[in-house]
Amino acid sequence: MTVLLTVAYDGTAYCGFQRQTNGITVQEKLEDALSCLFSSKINVAGASRTDAGVHALGQRITFIIEPMKIPLDRLPYAINANLPDDITVHMAEKVSDGFNPRHAKDKTYIYQIYNSRFPNPTLRNYTWFVPYKLDINDMRKAAEAFVGSHDFKAFCATGSSVKTTVRTIYQCNIVRDEDLISLSIKGNGFLYNMVRIITGTIMYVGHGKIPAESIPDIILSRDRTQAGKTAPPQGLFLRDIKY
Amino acid sequence: MTVLLTVAYDGTAYCGFQRQTNGITVQEKLEDALSCLFSSKINVAGASRTDAGVHALGQRITFIIEPMKIPLDRLPYAINANLPDDITVHMAEKVSDGFNPRHAKDKTYIYQIYNSRFPNPTLRNYTWFVPYKLDINDMRKAAEAFVGSHDFKAFCATGSSVKTTVRTIYQCNIVRDEDLISLSIKGNGFLYNMVRIITGTIMYVGHGKIPAESIPDIILSRDRTQAGKTAPPQGLFLRDIKY
Repeated sequence: MTVLLTVAYDGTAYCGFQRQTNGITVQEKLEDALSCLFSSKINVAGASRTDAGVHALGQRITFIIEPMKIPLDRLPYAINANLPDDITVHMAEKVSDGFNPRHAKDKTYIYQIYNSRFPNPTLRNYTWFVPYKLDINDMRKAAEAFVGSHDFKAFCATGSSVKTTVRTIYQCNIVRDEDLISLSIKGNGFLYNMVRIITGTIMYVGHGKIPAESIPDIILSRDRTQAGKTAPPQGLFLRDIKY
Repeated sequence: MTVLLTVAYDGTAYCGFQRQTNGITVQEKLEDALSCLFSSKINVAGASRTDAGVHALGQRITFIIEPMKIPLDRLPYAINANLPDDITVHMAEKVSDGFNPRHAKDKTYIYQIYNSRFPNPTLRNYTWFVPYKLDINDMRKAAEAFVGSHDFKAFCATGSSVKTTVRTIYQCNIVRDEDLISLSIKGNGFLYNMVRIITGTIMYVGHGKIPAESIPDIILSRDRTQAGKTAPPQGLFLRDIKY
């Protein structure tokens, strides 16, 4: 049986999602928990390779197990009993054999900014702390300019190789609640570091470094150096993935 | 000069505010930072002795320094440079000699509950995770019953010695935002563990263990065993103190 899990994690303590030799990853913890539960070596495939420090509320992973002896509605509890408290499985579903979790219909990310004179220590691992004044209306104008199908090469970390850098953004909203600013972005896919570079560029607009009207030209340039700096990882949350 | 500081901290890593020999405390970190900055031994007095794991957004502390060579508006930055990133000074004010930070006009605490089927790992150190269904309307009714001047002996950890257990609660509100429930309570003072015992009792009401109408009788009983269990520390935030 191929099982699809919905997983939430606090990325603070991990070297990202994908297994690597240099540090502890979320994938390793999940594979260890599943291998322990089923007493056999289990490999998982993740929908999104989140970076070190990036969080997830709705990461998706698949694994294959034969036979499956645990009812699917009990499976999250059984796996969670083997996981550290910064990783939690929320749901388990049966999917067809060969299901690829990377082939999503859409993904939604949230980026949180804490905008105040001094940092809030309880949000330090979950926000980008920015002490300068931001123009939210200009940031909203900039955010809207990303919606649509565009070649996002300017918003992709250099050195990454993909077939095409064209992606479709369905929505890009900004909400302010006192000192907390949340950017929500939904698209059919994202290039490497794309959400963090879009966020960094929108912050340039909010800070008055570039006008909101410059976004279409930056997109057209296909030049990474025209976009803003990459926002730090800890403000980013992989919110939701739909198939 | 007597200086009053406003301090925010993430209490996760500390054995509470007050200095003790068995573990690292927020008071110790603040005294170390101030002693280092002023090159002389500085003692601080805190407004509230928050427990291990409890957070603060508006703790207040005083210390005496003579002469004071740093402008007060620069002082938070200078102290923060000597503090770990889970403690941050937000403001420095001059107060009269003999000012006692414990003698507040009112204090406000927030208690956060995460109410969902599975935990949110990114909120695990900042909320009480409760998976069962809660009746918010009943919880609001219960919260209102605490407002006023009452003898709160039933809501005080046993063994604590104070002159009087009468306190005045000015407001006690509950707000729900999706899975996050926030209880906000403002009063002229709080007994040891009082906010956490009030929260635990309101949760009994939300869970249907006791009716909202029973709160006045529990208060009148002056009996700790009549109230609910003490809510865990990590959901509690010392929000604000006024003089």
